[in-house]
Amino acid sequence: MNYASFLSADGAPTWGVIDDGRAYDLGPTGLNLAATLRAAVVDGTFGKITDQHLQAQARPESDIEYLPSITDPGKILCIGVNYRTHQQETGRTDQKAPTVFTRFADTQIGHRQPALMPASTEQFDYEGEMALVIGKDAFHVAEEEAFEYVAGYAAYNDFTARDWQRVTTQWIPGKNFPGTGAFGPWLVPAADLGDVSALSLETRVNGDVRQKASVADLYFSIPELIAHVTGFTRLAAGDVIVTGTPGGVGFFMQPQGLLAEGDQVEVEITGLGVLRNTVTRVD
Amino acid sequence: MNYASFLSADGAPTWGVIDDGRAYDLGPTGLNLAATLRAAVVDGTFGKITDQHLQAQARPESDIEYLPSITDPGKILCIGVNYRTHQQETGRTDQKAPTVFTRFADTQIGHRQPALMPASTEQFDYEGEMALVIGKDAFHVAEEEAFEYVAGYAAYNDFTARDWQRVTTQWIPGKNFPGTGAFGPWLVPAADLGDVSALSLETRVNGDVRQKASVADLYFSIPELIAHVTGFTRLAAGDVIVTGTPGGVGFFMQPQGLLAEGDQVEVEITGLGVLRNTVTRVD
Repeated sequence: MNYASFLSADGAPTWGVIDDGRAYDLGPTGLNLAATLRAAVVDGTFGKITDQHLQAQARPESDIEYLPSITDPGKILCIGVNYRTHQQETGRTDQKAPTVFTRFADTQIGHRQPALMPASTEQFDYEGEMALVIGKDAFHVAEEEAFEYVAGYAAYNDFTARDWQRVTTQWIPGKNFPGTGAFGPWLVPAADLGDVSALSLETRVNGDVRQKASVADLYFSIPELIAHVTGFTRLAAGDVIVTGTPGGVGFFMQPQGLLAEGDQVEVEITGLGVLRNTVTRVD
Repeated sequence: MNYASFLSADGAPTWGVIDDGRAYDLGPTGLNLAATLRAAVVDGTFGKITDQHLQAQARPESDIEYLPSITDPGKILCIGVNYRTHQQETGRTDQKAPTVFTRFADTQIGHRQPALMPASTEQFDYEGEMALVIGKDAFHVAEEEAFEYVAGYAAYNDFTARDWQRVTTQWIPGKNFPGTGAFGPWLVPAADLGDVSALSLETRVNGDVRQKASVADLYFSIPELIAHVTGFTRLAAGDVIVTGTPGGVGFFMQPQGLLAEGDQVEVEITGLGVLRNTVTRVD
């Protein structure tokens, strides 16, 4: 089942399920099973929706405005250089532990919302990634139990202002402009997906394939990431880990393939749909 | 006037003013002028308390348990290597822009609360710093207007697990263990302080002076920090910028002067009081 956060017909934030081309409203403007998709993850409603719930009011999926899958995560932890192909292109081949940085929740956008390229960057880039959403309180989690803490998965585009990322050693500024963390279209329950290492990821710019990888190629596995992150910070249901991008980012292409106004960027992951955003320059 | 967040006699979070050895309760368990000190910054109550408000119920200051000055900031942005003396000891002398990293709000502690040294670090260190609290929405702020956006100032101890900070290029893990961001004791309105560059900072471990600097020695000034940070992220009232630590951290002492169980660490800044925390080992 494909869960999503979106705006209702009158523009209020809600959430629901996308099924067979229709968006079923299960949030505050519909069945009101929980206030937000995050709240549905917290209270366990997420993952329990069945066909019998899909009698709710529905609209064509093409009519809705998507929001980030989780609109209000408490913590977003992003993993850097976590595919060998990206380690090679960046020259960062000596990874002793997962590289962790953060995004603020207000950087996020949904599927089909514009990716906002700030006027102050000359190096706006894509990073197609798989994100996971935590399902319950998690601290000092052992690798062998880590998958029990995952509620679901979604595609993510970690749009980056490379000049702001690289001007000092710490990447936070280049990763935290508003409108640069694309998350969706769907959040799919882990139980629906089986072995996520079988999933494949592809990033396209105006239809050209730029990144292509299998989730099995993650350098630090999902259990290793969860164990590492919960080794220093306590996670809660609805928190997000973005697992890293494979080789093929625009900055390291020769010649460079950075983004321009109007470029359409798609991140497609098997079973998680296509996340599409168009680059829009903003002041 | 010295504002603080603390627990009421029955253990509920509140806030108020510390004056002449007494803690006046202006929060939910007292005069209830605002729900939290952050809310008082948001609604403008902060900075407007006068002696005539200090008829409220009060307890001896020595009886209260302090909380972090702002218990629930939306964003905490920390600045790295922002004194020449610390640039020299770290070898990071080429700073083209402020180095920015983040803390989660759940890392914070108040004055006199234990600093929690995790079992997983062998390199726990102090970083005495001055923090500022933003007073109103701030985005793309010009340097010449930056001080208008500062509500007040406080001392901060950015306790750091150096091994977790340095295992990859990104410092987030070493800066985000629970119980490691000490903030207080007081938040003092900017208007009460005059020229903050005249303030001096001193960090002591078990009474030995380890760090000593003037705020005038900041490499990137407070206006430059605010302009840089609001160049990529939108700040709100109650958000925190921690301005950086001077030379003298334990990691770079010869021999190293890292922290051990039971060490008492004090950060004193002129006019902002003494922030004291004792190091406690936790699993």
